[in-house]
Amino acid sequence: MAGPERKVWSENYSEWFHKVISETPIYDTRYPVKGTGIWTPFGFRLRSSVLNIIREELERTGHDEVLFPQLIPDYLLSRESEHIRNFEDEVYWVTHGGKTPLDVKLALRPTSETAMYPIFKLWINAYSDLPLKIFQVVSVFRYETKATRPMIRVREVSTFKEAHTAHATREEAEEQVRTGVEVYSRIFGELKIPFLRSVRPDWDKFPGAERSVAFDTIMPDGKVLQIGTVHFLGQNFSKAFDIKYMTKEGGYEHVWQTCYGISERAIAALISVHGDDRGLVLPSNIAPVQVVVIPIVYKGREEEVLKACVGARDALQSAGIRAALDNRRDLTPGNKYYSWEMKGVPVRVEIGPRDLDAGTAVIVRRDSLKKVQVQIGSLAEAVKEAFREIDLELGRRSRDWMETKVRKASSIDEAKEELDRRGGVVEMFWCGRASCGQELEKAIDARILGTPYEDEIAVGQDAKCILCGEVALKKIRAARSY
Amino acid sequence: MAGPERKVWSENYSEWFHKVISETPIYDTRYPVKGTGIWTPFGFRLRSSVLNIIREELERTGHDEVLFPQLIPDYLLSRESEHIRNFEDEVYWVTHGGKTPLDVKLALRPTSETAMYPIFKLWINAYSDLPLKIFQVVSVFRYETKATRPMIRVREVSTFKEAHTAHATREEAEEQVRTGVEVYSRIFGELKIPFLRSVRPDWDKFPGAERSVAFDTIMPDGKVLQIGTVHFLGQNFSKAFDIKYMTKEGGYEHVWQTCYGISERAIAALISVHGDDRGLVLPSNIAPVQVVVIPIVYKGREEEVLKACVGARDALQSAGIRAALDNRRDLTPGNKYYSWEMKGVPVRVEIGPRDLDAGTAVIVRRDSLKKVQVQIGSLAEAVKEAFREIDLELGRRSRDWMETKVRKASSIDEAKEELDRRGGVVEMFWCGRASCGQELEKAIDARILGTPYEDEIAVGQDAKCILCGEVALKKIRAARSY
Repeated sequence: MAGPERKVWSENYSEWFHKVISETPIYDTRYPVKGTGIWTPFGFRLRSSVLNIIREELERTGHDEVLFPQLIPDYLLSRESEHIRNFEDEVYWVTHGGKTPLDVKLALRPTSETAMYPIFKLWINAYSDLPLKIFQVVSVFRYETKATRPMIRVREVSTFKEAHTAHATREEAEEQVRTGVEVYSRIFGELKIPFLRSVRPDWDKFPGAERSVAFDTIMPDGKVLQIGTVHFLGQNFSKAFDIKYMTKEGGYEHVWQTCYGISERAIAALISVHGDDRGLVLPSNIAPVQVVVIPIVYKGREEEVLKACVGARDALQSAGIRAALDNRRDLTPGNKYYSWEMKGVPVRVEIGPRDLDAGTAVIVRRDSLKKVQVQIGSLAEAVKEAFREIDLELGRRSRDWMETKVRKASSIDEAKEELDRRGGVVEMFWCGRASCGQELEKAIDARILGTPYEDEIAVGQDAKCILCGEVALKKIRAARSY
Repeated sequence: MAGPERKVWSENYSEWFHKVISETPIYDTRYPVKGTGIWTPFGFRLRSSVLNIIREELERTGHDEVLFPQLIPDYLLSRESEHIRNFEDEVYWVTHGGKTPLDVKLALRPTSETAMYPIFKLWINAYSDLPLKIFQVVSVFRYETKATRPMIRVREVSTFKEAHTAHATREEAEEQVRTGVEVYSRIFGELKIPFLRSVRPDWDKFPGAERSVAFDTIMPDGKVLQIGTVHFLGQNFSKAFDIKYMTKEGGYEHVWQTCYGISERAIAALISVHGDDRGLVLPSNIAPVQVVVIPIVYKGREEEVLKACVGARDALQSAGIRAALDNRRDLTPGNKYYSWEMKGVPVRVEIGPRDLDAGTAVIVRRDSLKKVQVQIGSLAEAVKEAFREIDLELGRRSRDWMETKVRKASSIDEAKEELDRRGGVVEMFWCGRASCGQELEKAIDARILGTPYEDEIAVGQDAKCILCGEVALKKIRAARSY
């Protein structure tokens, strides 16, 4: 596909990302607390589009939205031992109300298991209360000591969607993990963000989980970004918080739990995987403005052209399309193109005097910049057809691009060279022992993403562990990551 | 209007409110941090309905939604002197990240002026950047030392809608205050919450404001609840935060500002002003479930009746009505009525064997419990007509009730007796001097709400100040308040 270059996008991704979020603007990083940012009006609308898709999928699959308090007393946060061990260095503590020291220190939630589960104990009494499936969208806080990065490594995660479920049996909870993975696959599918699903290795699971499935995507610079996780918690938390239910037979059992989360990293990925050197490129379902109508004005026919543009905007809106008209008089069409291309508006409609005479309009696709002349009477139809093509193309392009970045390696040297030279993900064979996995991380200076979610079983009898040379039981993925 | 009694509602309002929010349930108060609560699935949907109305009105009037960080560095919070003087005793302070003491103490925002206005300085350069009109919906925190009360006096205000505007001139900002008051009047109108609008006295303005207009309603126990405020900030904050713009003439001026807020108190008021002894009563536009269809089952015709109920539910949904079917088999119709009445569902539809034979259904209004038999073919139409009548009736009833609670008093004794005996609001004449106003507060043991927003000018030459007896320039309102 032709279209704008993606040179700065891939060669200077960091700079590109900063420019796009600042110029559009989406997210203002000038707030004077490290690791935080401001969602601007356009950014907020983009965020809402993404959250709408997430909410729709969760509601359709029986999750109810709730809202829990933000502060967690220290004694609750520390009740599940593995959980607190992993979070204790990164929790913000509220210690004073006014000038008064608090009796009980309060944590700004880093995630909400320990806030919700004492209440689950109150909500769940009998098998008829199960399954319980809820979610909330909130800010969570982590005192990151590493270098922060807008939307990607932040101290206030301002868009954390966390779902939490409780079930009567291990089987039902495991089935819910599969459902959670499917729900997330559909969400990223709607966003046209390609992903790899990996079962994280034991040494990199969510603190307190039995098993963690993660969604990763590859950013333009070849580094991997974790964009979603689904955890099987077993009975670790239900035992720590004593969440029991009465079975049909009248006995008592601890519930089985899962939780899964997505943050604004999904929005960072959306911006990054589709962009090009002119800025944002958005799928039509996500774009806050789907079409902009721009009058091409010539002296003497200004009023006539503007009238046709207003008519076109109204016709598009009547067809359910989020259309805007840019009739700013102090900007040239070229300046307008620049600003709307930066915003990623999927389709631009241009109408000038020649179009008036011919009863036409020009449609320009953001992804390819391809222009088509269409009859003004069938404008809405043509725009909708363009949306379909753009959405298909963005999905195809991002998937194809990611696939070029996933390579197999059969030696340590090859794996390391691949990562050094091209980034992306390397897949290798692995015996399954943690010791080999962790040694591999050091040997190739990369993070083990885990084993493919799709084929955890076995990979063929000829396969040998890339490290120890013994029989390989699994494929393992590694990458440089955010 | 006939209908369920309102005896417990008015005589034991506190108990009534607690029962309704716990049994519906709307808001769970068992979270182990004082002054906080959990929005349950039903409560969250109710909250969303209210927020949708607020967002719609604000967006229609040109306000853009944004999201600012939650933590405010201490040096920013204290920049406007009057502002910090009023908040310093009630701010929660984050002092540690993990085990590390922070260099700069961070406040959990009690409100966002001091978070937003340093950024307004960056966003506003010239007159063409004005007016700036934004809002956000967030949690804010106040370390309340008084007795807390669910949704009414809380430490985490979890539903704070705050709007902030900046303008080129005093006149434009004052006009925006009037617009803000109109916007809020329409919002409370949609919620059918009656209100009095008062200009707060100087000693009870928002800290840092030149003038505060407040919306108050009267709760079932006769106490007044402040449900919204609109503030004219003048240039107090723009000078403290140095927010200037370049005028058309090339000079620099400080901007003029306003801000206005609504919290979950609006939801507490919605619940309270419309309720009765059976629980919640909701206007149709707010109700998460607008209609519940209940099968009246007799042996032998179960399937037939259920089929008709499914058909009725589907027909209602097709007509754009949020309809649910209650086909729980372990509950009697009576138990079902009880639970849906508690939830305030505006209309109940009952279908039994006799209806099947006659091609009818029975509609029961929640407000009056009035039953009407309607043709099944025109069910949706009849339900919509019932919605119109219910909404009108709730508006009329709550307004009439409030009006009986607003009385005039012409002596201190009369005012005090009125408040002691009936609660509500008393209106008196006032000379306008703060000393008289504050003495009055003590004399009648009440809070001065201020002067009516509608007639601030004068009230007639015969009027004498209720305290000093000199010429009265204003009416003044007083009440016992939350």
